[in-house]
Amino acid sequence: MKLFAKAVLAISIAAIPPLSNPALANDEGILVKEIGGYHVGGKEILIKGLPSYETQYTPGGPKVTINPNGGFEAFQMYVQYVKLVSPKAKYPLLLWHGGGLSGVTWEDTPDGRKGWQTFFLKKGHDVYVTDSVERGRATWARYPEINKGEPVFRPKSQAWESFRIGPKYDDDPAKREIYPDTLFPYKHFDQMSKQSTPRWTTSDEATLAAYKEYVKSLPEACVIVAHSQGAVFAWDVARSMPEKVKAVVMLEPGGIPDPAKVDVDYSPLKGVKVLWLFGDLNTKYWQDRRTLLKRVDDKFKAAGGQSDWIEMTDSGVKGNTHMLMMDTNSDQIAQVVQDWLEKQGLMKGSSK
Amino acid sequence: MKLFAKAVLAISIAAIPPLSNPALANDEGILVKEIGGYHVGGKEILIKGLPSYETQYTPGGPKVTINPNGGFEAFQMYVQYVKLVSPKAKYPLLLWHGGGLSGVTWEDTPDGRKGWQTFFLKKGHDVYVTDSVERGRATWARYPEINKGEPVFRPKSQAWESFRIGPKYDDDPAKREIYPDTLFPYKHFDQMSKQSTPRWTTSDEATLAAYKEYVKSLPEACVIVAHSQGAVFAWDVARSMPEKVKAVVMLEPGGIPDPAKVDVDYSPLKGVKVLWLFGDLNTKYWQDRRTLLKRVDDKFKAAGGQSDWIEMTDSGVKGNTHMLMMDTNSDQIAQVVQDWLEKQGLMKGSSK
Repeated sequence: MKLFAKAVLAISIAAIPPLSNPALANDEGILVKEIGGYHVGGKEILIKGLPSYETQYTPGGPKVTINPNGGFEAFQMYVQYVKLVSPKAKYPLLLWHGGGLSGVTWEDTPDGRKGWQTFFLKKGHDVYVTDSVERGRATWARYPEINKGEPVFRPKSQAWESFRIGPKYDDDPAKREIYPDTLFPYKHFDQMSKQSTPRWTTSDEATLAAYKEYVKSLPEACVIVAHSQGAVFAWDVARSMPEKVKAVVMLEPGGIPDPAKVDVDYSPLKGVKVLWLFGDLNTKYWQDRRTLLKRVDDKFKAAGGQSDWIEMTDSGVKGNTHMLMMDTNSDQIAQVVQDWLEKQGLMKGSSK
Repeated sequence: MKLFAKAVLAISIAAIPPLSNPALANDEGILVKEIGGYHVGGKEILIKGLPSYETQYTPGGPKVTINPNGGFEAFQMYVQYVKLVSPKAKYPLLLWHGGGLSGVTWEDTPDGRKGWQTFFLKKGHDVYVTDSVERGRATWARYPEINKGEPVFRPKSQAWESFRIGPKYDDDPAKREIYPDTLFPYKHFDQMSKQSTPRWTTSDEATLAAYKEYVKSLPEACVIVAHSQGAVFAWDVARSMPEKVKAVVMLEPGGIPDPAKVDVDYSPLKGVKVLWLFGDLNTKYWQDRRTLLKRVDDKFKAAGGQSDWIEMTDSGVKGNTHMLMMDTNSDQIAQVVQDWLEKQGLMKGSSK
């Protein structure tokens, strides 16, 4: 019987593409067609009239005269892609990080497990991870001459509290207070903090422009999974080119304008499938944000949109933080996203 | 006959691991075991006593008070790895970028070809690409409170001339002068410039510390392919832990101290195999650097070291720039490296 099964396997491998064998995809590796990275968007800025100055590259080293004038590239973003030989998803999956972060968000979790990049590759998606303008490998330009704003550095205390890891941060790790049911691998919080990037003021417009150029440059439509500030950009990009964006997963979105205050036409979005996905919204700040986002969703639906709204607590899972792709049940949450994508008919073989 | 061949293939695939089929590795994809990224090195820095200030995240937006004090992670570096199911190399290959650049150096070339990351993956190496301290996804910390130095931005003109693309840069691309035989895809120079990162002064010590921590953290020995400033760090890391570094490929190295001026003991390096590799050293600056590096190599050999010295012009290839991993013959140069690694017995199945 065993021998017979082997013979059948041999014939089927010769007849069909290798990745159709699920064992190969999940346990024996990921069959990658292409991996690479590049920049998209941005423009040249010429700097003139600044004085030259002296500096040293190493303490005690020779004095070097620096002329800071010239042409510089600025406001581009960075894209890294992993394409599969045999994707099972109909469209590439784009992972967009939040504010003060970079694409590292989706890689190894702070406690060393595999992140969502790997999860979705194993589920058969081509996965594109980006660093938005001025962050990570997108790199940044001098200020105030090019960037009009300034870099703001998020202290660890702020991340601890606003990401809902715990009510109170302390410089001494032993004295940090967690929420008793937190699912963040809080003992590895400092490791997570190493990926924190400066966040620039007044760069939203340039960032949105780069994201639009990026999505426009893709040869086909896409699905966007976007976190926090990244979800705000995803929402705007989807609204401006709904034909290129089949679905948007809004992971704990950041500051989308309140429809009670700002009148935005959501009707262009109505063909885009939307999932709102949240952890455990156990603080007033996040409960207020939920109320505002409910208004956004209501308005989206009133304009003919189709959406789902999932809070992990609905199914009894408590303690998911703002960084749910790093929480100890990160695969469980990714599976919620995957199930939803399947239901939307976004995997191959679906009749939808 | 064709049918018979198919049957043989089917049997062999069932019997051996998929990647042992060279066609699969080269034409049908790369069988990846694991992909991911993380930070290594660095430490916490506490900032105290700075005044709070007001800013706006968006022009015309609400005023926000920023307290810049607190704990921050700083001086870490970023590592991204792609591990194969069946590596053919004995040790992972580490790609280290040069000054004012990031790991993007090794990804798609500015004109959209596949870079060295892909080349060496296809040759069967586990490939690790890094962003050194303060660059790219390593991210950076505030100055002058944490970084004592300052960020220096390289104007495009400086890259054009010092990378030996041409003798004279102009803001107008049509007026830029190239060396007639340049192999850099100069029409895509602006695209390359988008990956340029600020270069910090006085950060060498922190950078070297992070590189050492990185190599030390690897479970096994490694091979380092390092470019320009990165090669200086590779040289020092190999000297401090030669048991972890089997070979170093020094691609157009940066400022290694002149042995005529600084007495450094190279005997710890003698077990490390060294390849010095250069493009077309057609400027005085690079000819002077060659002279200095020859003194380094002489001293290394005098201490018992084994090295090879290759300039692409030796085999009649003119016009290779400092960015040889991006030049139009980048695969040819990568093959020179691969051939040398094979000769050193660093691929599996070698008896050396």
